[in-house]
Amino acid sequence: MPSYATNMRLKFPILALTLEAVTIVLYALLVVYDTGDAHGHDGSHAESNTTHSSSPMTLYPMFQDVHVMIFIGFGFLMTFLKRYGFSSVGINLLLAAFGLQWGLLLQNIWHMHDGKIRVSIEKMINADFSTATVLISFGAVLGKTSPVQLLIMTLLEITIFCINEHLVVEVLNVSDVGASMTIHAFGAYFGLAVAGVLYRPGLRNGHENEVSVYHSDLFAMIGTVYLWMFWPSFNSAIAEPGDPQLRAVINTYFSLAACALAAYATSSLVEKKGKLDMVHIQNATLAGGVAVGTCADMDIQPFGAMAIGITAGVISTVGFKFLTPILASKLGIQDTCGVHNLHGMPGILGGLAGILAAALGKKAGVSPGYQACGLASSLGFALVGGLITGLIMKIPFWGQPPDQNCFDDSIFWEVPEEEEENEERLTHGDYSKTKTEA
Amino acid sequence: MPSYATNMRLKFPILALTLEAVTIVLYALLVVYDTGDAHGHDGSHAESNTTHSSSPMTLYPMFQDVHVMIFIGFGFLMTFLKRYGFSSVGINLLLAAFGLQWGLLLQNIWHMHDGKIRVSIEKMINADFSTATVLISFGAVLGKTSPVQLLIMTLLEITIFCINEHLVVEVLNVSDVGASMTIHAFGAYFGLAVAGVLYRPGLRNGHENEVSVYHSDLFAMIGTVYLWMFWPSFNSAIAEPGDPQLRAVINTYFSLAACALAAYATSSLVEKKGKLDMVHIQNATLAGGVAVGTCADMDIQPFGAMAIGITAGVISTVGFKFLTPILASKLGIQDTCGVHNLHGMPGILGGLAGILAAALGKKAGVSPGYQACGLASSLGFALVGGLITGLIMKIPFWGQPPDQNCFDDSIFWEVPEEEEENEERLTHGDYSKTKTEA
Amino acid sequence: MPSYATNMRLKFPILALTLEAVTIVLYALLVVYDTGDAHGHDGSHAESNTTHSSSPMTLYPMFQDVHVMIFIGFGFLMTFLKRYGFSSVGINLLLAAFGLQWGLLLQNIWHMHDGKIRVSIEKMINADFSTATVLISFGAVLGKTSPVQLLIMTLLEITIFCINEHLVVEVLNVSDVGASMTIHAFGAYFGLAVAGVLYRPGLRNGHENEVSVYHSDLFAMIGTVYLWMFWPSFNSAIAEPGDPQLRAVINTYFSLAACALAAYATSSLVEKKGKLDMVHIQNATLAGGVAVGTCADMDIQPFGAMAIGITAGVISTVGFKFLTPILASKLGIQDTCGVHNLHGMPGILGGLAGILAAALGKKAGVSPGYQACGLASSLGFALVGGLITGLIMKIPFWGQPPDQNCFDDSIFWEVPEEEEENEERLTHGDYSKTKTEA
Repeated sequence: MPSYATNMRLKFPILALTLEAVTIVLYALLVVYDTGDAHGHDGSHAESNTTHSSSPMTLYPMFQDVHVMIFIGFGFLMTFLKRYGFSSVGINLLLAAFGLQWGLLLQNIWHMHDGKIRVSIEKMINADFSTATVLISFGAVLGKTSPVQLLIMTLLEITIFCINEHLVVEVLNVSDVGASMTIHAFGAYFGLAVAGVLYRPGLRNGHENEVSVYHSDLFAMIGTVYLWMFWPSFNSAIAEPGDPQLRAVINTYFSLAACALAAYATSSLVEKKGKLDMVHIQNATLAGGVAVGTCADMDIQPFGAMAIGITAGVISTVGFKFLTPILASKLGIQDTCGVHNLHGMPGILGGLAGILAAALGKKAGVSPGYQACGLASSLGFALVGGLITGLIMKIPFWGQPPDQNCFDDSIFWEVPEEEEENEERLTHGDYSKTKTEA
Repeated sequence: MPSYATNMRLKFPILALTLEAVTIVLYALLVVYDTGDAHGHDGSHAESNTTHSSSPMTLYPMFQDVHVMIFIGFGFLMTFLKRYGFSSVGINLLLAAFGLQWGLLLQNIWHMHDGKIRVSIEKMINADFSTATVLISFGAVLGKTSPVQLLIMTLLEITIFCINEHLVVEVLNVSDVGASMTIHAFGAYFGLAVAGVLYRPGLRNGHENEVSVYHSDLFAMIGTVYLWMFWPSFNSAIAEPGDPQLRAVINTYFSLAACALAAYATSSLVEKKGKLDMVHIQNATLAGGVAVGTCADMDIQPFGAMAIGITAGVISTVGFKFLTPILASKLGIQDTCGVHNLHGMPGILGGLAGILAAALGKKAGVSPGYQACGLASSLGFALVGGLITGLIMKIPFWGQPPDQNCFDDSIFWEVPEEEEENEERLTHGDYSKTKTEA
Repeated sequence: MPSYATNMRLKFPILALTLEAVTIVLYALLVVYDTGDAHGHDGSHAESNTTHSSSPMTLYPMFQDVHVMIFIGFGFLMTFLKRYGFSSVGINLLLAAFGLQWGLLLQNIWHMHDGKIRVSIEKMINADFSTATVLISFGAVLGKTSPVQLLIMTLLEITIFCINEHLVVEVLNVSDVGASMTIHAFGAYFGLAVAGVLYRPGLRNGHENEVSVYHSDLFAMIGTVYLWMFWPSFNSAIAEPGDPQLRAVINTYFSLAACALAAYATSSLVEKKGKLDMVHIQNATLAGGVAVGTCADMDIQPFGAMAIGITAGVISTVGFKFLTPILASKLGIQDTCGVHNLHGMPGILGGLAGILAAALGKKAGVSPGYQACGLASSLGFALVGGLITGLIMKIPFWGQPPDQNCFDDSIFWEVPEEEEENEERLTHGDYSKTKTEA
């Protein structure tokens, strides 16, 4: 019975507390501070050695930039819906807070020292990264899933992400410093697979709440601008210190700048009367950061980064305009935030650019064949993992909201009573009725 | 006569300019740059010596994180009320801007060099910290006090804070790196004492403006998320460089992550139908940062930090649900923002955790007895100082707003007229017409 | 015909793509990474040498602070208008994204190494700085210009800025570390000259959309507070490392703190009933950052910085209250954001303070005469450049919006339909009633 199913009492707190309880036990057994003394006999981790040579806090400002992208950037980017801001920022915080604890465990069980995971700033950055996959997938199913379903998705997606990341980065030695493939393409196609499994014919003709209002679009711009500004930190945080890290910053800076121009131009080109569309500006301006990720630390020169950025900006905007409606109507994939346009296609573009750059010898020791394997692996794990996860999420007990309660915070949140507003709504049919039913 | 009393003309500008004039004279006499040359014969300040060994700017990124917490974090956290956002962000800026100038003076008169206070980044961080006490207390009396009263509170509270901090940290040598006791518990109980003195029976049954609207809750989430993200900087900024500072970052990171899960779970558990309450999410998710403060730099390991965070998240949420109404109805303490739940109880929890950690030997040279004295001293100074300050603030001349004007910016601010908007829209069918024309 | 002229289709995308295409070609020919190996034979650039001695990433946290000021600070500061937030944040992003690419080219064609511009973090900071001039001028013409006009202004203004900056800083060797003269005064008077040329008699009696609403004022405070917090980074980012950089941070910190008190006091003093005016708080609190810019790295001591800050806060607030209306009515200069009060007069004050400080010997090797030349040059280039640019922008083909469509996003953006909300307001009368009662 739906009215029971969407009632979170007990179900949600028990799941959240159980996950946290399991996590804290595993931390008590496995996780300690990285005091730097164990690095002498750590042959496999040249990278963190280099970082540590100066100070354990060297990467801290970059960590904070990434942290802002995860919690403010992703959180506010999704507040564009008029009645789904609480969930966007709030559930984003919940998923990322659990995800970073889980991700840190799973990313590091492959290489423990004396049976312990040693936490450093770099590992915290990677843990934050692991949550990005979930937040991207969250965008695909935004408004149509319950917090319980999303916690389950977080648990499964981060687990699958860590397996693929280990395979791609550590086993195949693929270069993906800004994670175009392992985070962006992975997170997008994982989310699209979930959205496909959870397809709702009832939303085929849209939903009255699946729209923005003026100020919700401005809140979303907070997310956009923070993501745009700090993307150079995302793509360079775990790059090799020195010139590679500098290159990653510079390439991302110019890719995003060029991408912004391309996104504005394309948005105007495809809209009637040449007007700009907020959805394009909120999203497609960021595609350059995604697409330059894989080759951010390579010697592609600023104009190469700009070329990638322009391509991404055009593809992403065109995707929002023409592809998203087709995905929904023909393939049954309802992608609320358009993550296919922001993370999916630009992520693949990033993977392809990486293959090309490798073929052109832009980074020593990187092979185009292995790069291609990395892309294929990320897409494969995403699609299969997303399908399985979607099927598990589909179990009615998890409390998926019925169609009429989608895109509406009030099903899972106490929302302020706005009397006058309610009365209006009451008169016109909409929001309050939905609320009473729930 | 109230209409005279709440008129700020002359009263407010004269007080503000007098305070600034006194400050600038004291700065001209006492305050110079810390050019580093005076450190040779500075035996007492090993800490700032260490910092200076690398560069005078080493702590600057941490300073900026703390700065963001003070001005964006505290400021926007309080914007949740539907008609009190101007005061929340605006008066927060005013009080902190004065407070940091006053705090830097008072914190350093105890140890001047050649009769001068030498300003460094570390001293600026401490000055920012001193303002946090006032901003916490501001939360307890939000909406019920005039800017004049609040400037007086700032002057007195920072003065009393500096005495207690000197006693606790320098004389008793208590360890409180994240200031659970000296800032959070102090600021909360100081503010609660003031709120008790300024008790308003007329607000016993609430006030029509003491509610949030949808977008005011979203503005408040900007504050929440920034506080949440940058709390590791708050707790580690003045820690000893190296491993202790790294520990402070890691402990705070995990305490907050675990606290978030606990706060969400508890919020759902105590609300009807398991819905989440924005007040809990905005505040209780942060309690883990407060509670881990005292032992942030101690060797409590990540799982210890998580245990503290979970406890804080549960206590804080339960406090909002059950304790705040009792405080208001039984004790006559009307705590607008619930600072007792976010800073008060978690601050005491932090102090107790510090005593326990000291007893377990988690930090060399720290004694549980002295830690207990530090907690007692902070609470004592807060309550006595808050009572005295409250009595001074109660003098009618300072222009305390009458009950009916509480929680309403328009008593102290020119607020935009929104009548015409309605009328205009009504008359013109407005906006859409313009649009159609275009 | 206006309806054709304001239609951006083709016109806007073609211009944007052409500018980006020209830029990418120039980058392919001229711009490479600064790998540090070319510095041996770089006699003229002692500054970047010093910076590089430690690591290419040393300035990165400061760069990010400046980046936040440019994209969040300037962008949100202009969102105060009730129906112009999309353009404020969105066009700000567009202009800055193009401007930084263009500025990096133009600022560095004067000193290339082996025919190449070598990009470093410092050059990225300077590129961000160059966009600030345009964003300041944007404030003067906000709401009255088309994106096409603004792209043309960006191209021309940054070009003229780079010529003046080269003349002032490199040829005349003027000291202007925080750019009071070369950015703030320049940007303001350039924008005022453009506004004068584009004078609209039809807006003499105001425009129904040239007002704020409650939440638009809160969005603007996001911009204000970020600018306020990070201004120490703006004024110190390119200062000489060590004590001069520390001085620049400290002076700006105290100037802003003192300025805030002065702005609040003056706002209350000049308003009826002593109420605070949001426009003053949003802007005049920042004037201290502008005015201390030129002598930020000089040995003026904290109290000297505070004196400058107080003066700037008073002048700026008084300017908003009394001067802006006169400029509009007598001189035909309609300054939407009041940049004359925030950047113009405080910028000149900064230049004058620099002359005085130079005369008092507060920085070795700086001459009051040359400082005065720097101020005169900046004002001259601004006024002449602004007049010429304004005349070019006035060409009807660029699609300047007609008076009735000013200050309204919907002429250039797809905006969400908000019909029902109007109807509700109409029926209930809502908020204004509450206000009237109060």
